[in-house]
Amino acid sequence: MSIQFDSDRLARLLGEINAFGHDPATGGYDRPAFGEADMAVRAFFRAAMAADGLATRMDAAGNVFGRLGPADAPAVMVGSHLDTVPCGGAFDGALGCAAALECVRSIRDAGLPLAHPIEVVATADEEGRFGGMLGSQAIAGALPAGWAHGTTDAEGIRLADAMAAAGLDVAALPSAARAPGSVRAFVELHIEQGPVLEAAGRAVGIATAVSGCTVIDVAITGAANHSGTTPMDMRRDAFVGLARLGAALPDLARERGGPDSRLTIGHVALVPNAAHTIPGEAHCTIIVRDIDAALMDALAEAAIGLGARVCADLGLAHAARIRSRLAPVGLDPALTALFAAEAARLGIDALTMPSGAGHDAQTMARLAPSGLLFVPSRRGISHAPDEFTAWPDIERGMTLLVNAVGALATAGSQSNIK
Amino acid sequence: MSIQFDSDRLARLLGEINAFGHDPATGGYDRPAFGEADMAVRAFFRAAMAADGLATRMDAAGNVFGRLGPADAPAVMVGSHLDTVPCGGAFDGALGCAAALECVRSIRDAGLPLAHPIEVVATADEEGRFGGMLGSQAIAGALPAGWAHGTTDAEGIRLADAMAAAGLDVAALPSAARAPGSVRAFVELHIEQGPVLEAAGRAVGIATAVSGCTVIDVAITGAANHSGTTPMDMRRDAFVGLARLGAALPDLARERGGPDSRLTIGHVALVPNAAHTIPGEAHCTIIVRDIDAALMDALAEAAIGLGARVCADLGLAHAARIRSRLAPVGLDPALTALFAAEAARLGIDALTMPSGAGHDAQTMARLAPSGLLFVPSRRGISHAPDEFTAWPDIERGMTLLVNAVGALATAGSQSNIK
Repeated sequence: MSIQFDSDRLARLLGEINAFGHDPATGGYDRPAFGEADMAVRAFFRAAMAADGLATRMDAAGNVFGRLGPADAPAVMVGSHLDTVPCGGAFDGALGCAAALECVRSIRDAGLPLAHPIEVVATADEEGRFGGMLGSQAIAGALPAGWAHGTTDAEGIRLADAMAAAGLDVAALPSAARAPGSVRAFVELHIEQGPVLEAAGRAVGIATAVSGCTVIDVAITGAANHSGTTPMDMRRDAFVGLARLGAALPDLARERGGPDSRLTIGHVALVPNAAHTIPGEAHCTIIVRDIDAALMDALAEAAIGLGARVCADLGLAHAARIRSRLAPVGLDPALTALFAAEAARLGIDALTMPSGAGHDAQTMARLAPSGLLFVPSRRGISHAPDEFTAWPDIERGMTLLVNAVGALATAGSQSNIK
Repeated sequence: MSIQFDSDRLARLLGEINAFGHDPATGGYDRPAFGEADMAVRAFFRAAMAADGLATRMDAAGNVFGRLGPADAPAVMVGSHLDTVPCGGAFDGALGCAAALECVRSIRDAGLPLAHPIEVVATADEEGRFGGMLGSQAIAGALPAGWAHGTTDAEGIRLADAMAAAGLDVAALPSAARAPGSVRAFVELHIEQGPVLEAAGRAVGIATAVSGCTVIDVAITGAANHSGTTPMDMRRDAFVGLARLGAALPDLARERGGPDSRLTIGHVALVPNAAHTIPGEAHCTIIVRDIDAALMDALAEAAIGLGARVCADLGLAHAARIRSRLAPVGLDPALTALFAAEAARLGIDALTMPSGAGHDAQTMARLAPSGLLFVPSRRGISHAPDEFTAWPDIERGMTLLVNAVGALATAGSQSNIK
């Protein structure tokens, strides 16, 4: 059998969520974590769950939960986040929350007996306003000691102050950690935020792993001089060093990387950055991602070595520092297999793929078996007002999600998820 | 014979000039054109010339003149500028003005009879606060029609308003134009602002030409996407296009350019310039300089073609626009020969060289035979507090300047300057 869901009800709920923080001027959505619109949408979402008869609560991190089913069994947790980046899109996070509540509604409507409670969650600050994935880290008991007290957003606002303004106490965060064994599985539906599904013509992706991410800060130093008076052979042009590095990185990825390797220079700053002056300094960040930790580390090392060689050839100083390193996270193979089996059963042509972006599922994997489903992003666009997923694709993703959650939570589940 | 000058008096005058606009916090000098410090230093300089018995005046552009000698003959004009860039150095412009007045003082002290008057000039806004070389352009009658009424500085302040605040009337600028034939020659001593003399171990440079300058605005457009979710082979990374262009420009200069060709990318802007986002746009300026106009134009065309090819290979859009083009200016061959002959006679090992930077001499060349002498800049540094020229080098430059001016102005002049 296949669990049916109410497509109109799902669309309506997504629209209700997106009434919060909408900016008609840009067409985008502004629900930065712990801001007014974010707290208001959480209150709305909690009330909607309560109206459906779910037992709701907000934990110390601001995560909102709604639970249905037996109290004495580990929960199947399903959800995503309601916060957005500034001027974000309509689907990133919001779709996964709406889909989670639609799961509960559909399974309840279908009258299926729950062997495990289903727990809908809308996590807090997934978009990293304060530099982490606060909500899921708190749930998984994975907040670094002391971090929450010191961290600030890009404008210097302290997490502690933003939480206090939202009625939350940073000191209470440890209480949000869930006991090991209390969560049977965590499942998230999210937009892909990349072009792979669209290019492959598939409606649904099953993530097998979340890429790791190494951030390298590079500083190249030459000598700032007048562009007219300094002969070409007497220059130490920091931008030429950066340009040679930037031109060679895609070759490095092709020659030394694998299919899931990504090398990106996204941020560049020259000093003095004046048209008539040879750049004396060139700074950039290199982002290295891969789902293979050893390969990611080898590529990071190779990128640093490449910059050092290029700069040595040009008489430039080269300093590179690994600012941060997040290891790749493998998602649960049994959950991935369940998704694939359900997709096959339901006639959904799903693509097994890595996740290049970070998601709550990678953090929740520390607490419980975690899985992640994708629906396509038109032209790969996300974090922007023209982020878009076609509704028929959402329906296919929702079909797989609700049936997988049903398989995990109902009495007849054949899943071997521990 | 050799005309002697007073080295201490020259140093004292340079120090007096640099009492204006000095910022002890940075060690730099701030005398932006028509600002308070600039107008004050002009008043000081005019008063110093008047105290020496020169007939002084300020013209409608703010140029300050001091004249000594017969009223009925074309003048030998000698000078430079007193304005500075923000946080500029102690020598750029100021040295040439102090040296010009020291010429008059020395020649008067030597009791040499003047066949031509010597006219000291301190020009206005040589540093281009308002986008040109206002003072010398006004003297040469070379202000573009209507330009002065519309132009603003980088902060949007109108030239007309800045002049009015300094007690000057923009509408009167045409009155500053000197009659053709009224100036026998224009001679300027300036710091090199480049590393060539220092590297060559020479104290004095004789400029034969001033480089032309073509400014090209380049815009490369790809697609901004997530650095994690977008596979390498599905990217249109605008920075990779810019990097390939920037890496190849020095090769283009070496392969297609001459010894005085300069190709520089000094200013770069990425959009969105965020570490985790593939750049969707990359903007830069390419500055092309040469003393050969045809070569300069060919290099500009080749740089644009290079960018177009690189971007086409990467599936990026490339748009290039020549924002401005200043033709190279040849300085007066007879003056250059006079400088060389005087240097040889005086035992000064001077280097004949192009000027890579722009100077009043290139504008004055429209009005009169013009010449330009350089003294070395330590490590090529200029427009910065650590701009420095060793005093013995200044003395050699001054020796050549005063003897050349003497040769041009005194009764016994053998110069064939027309």
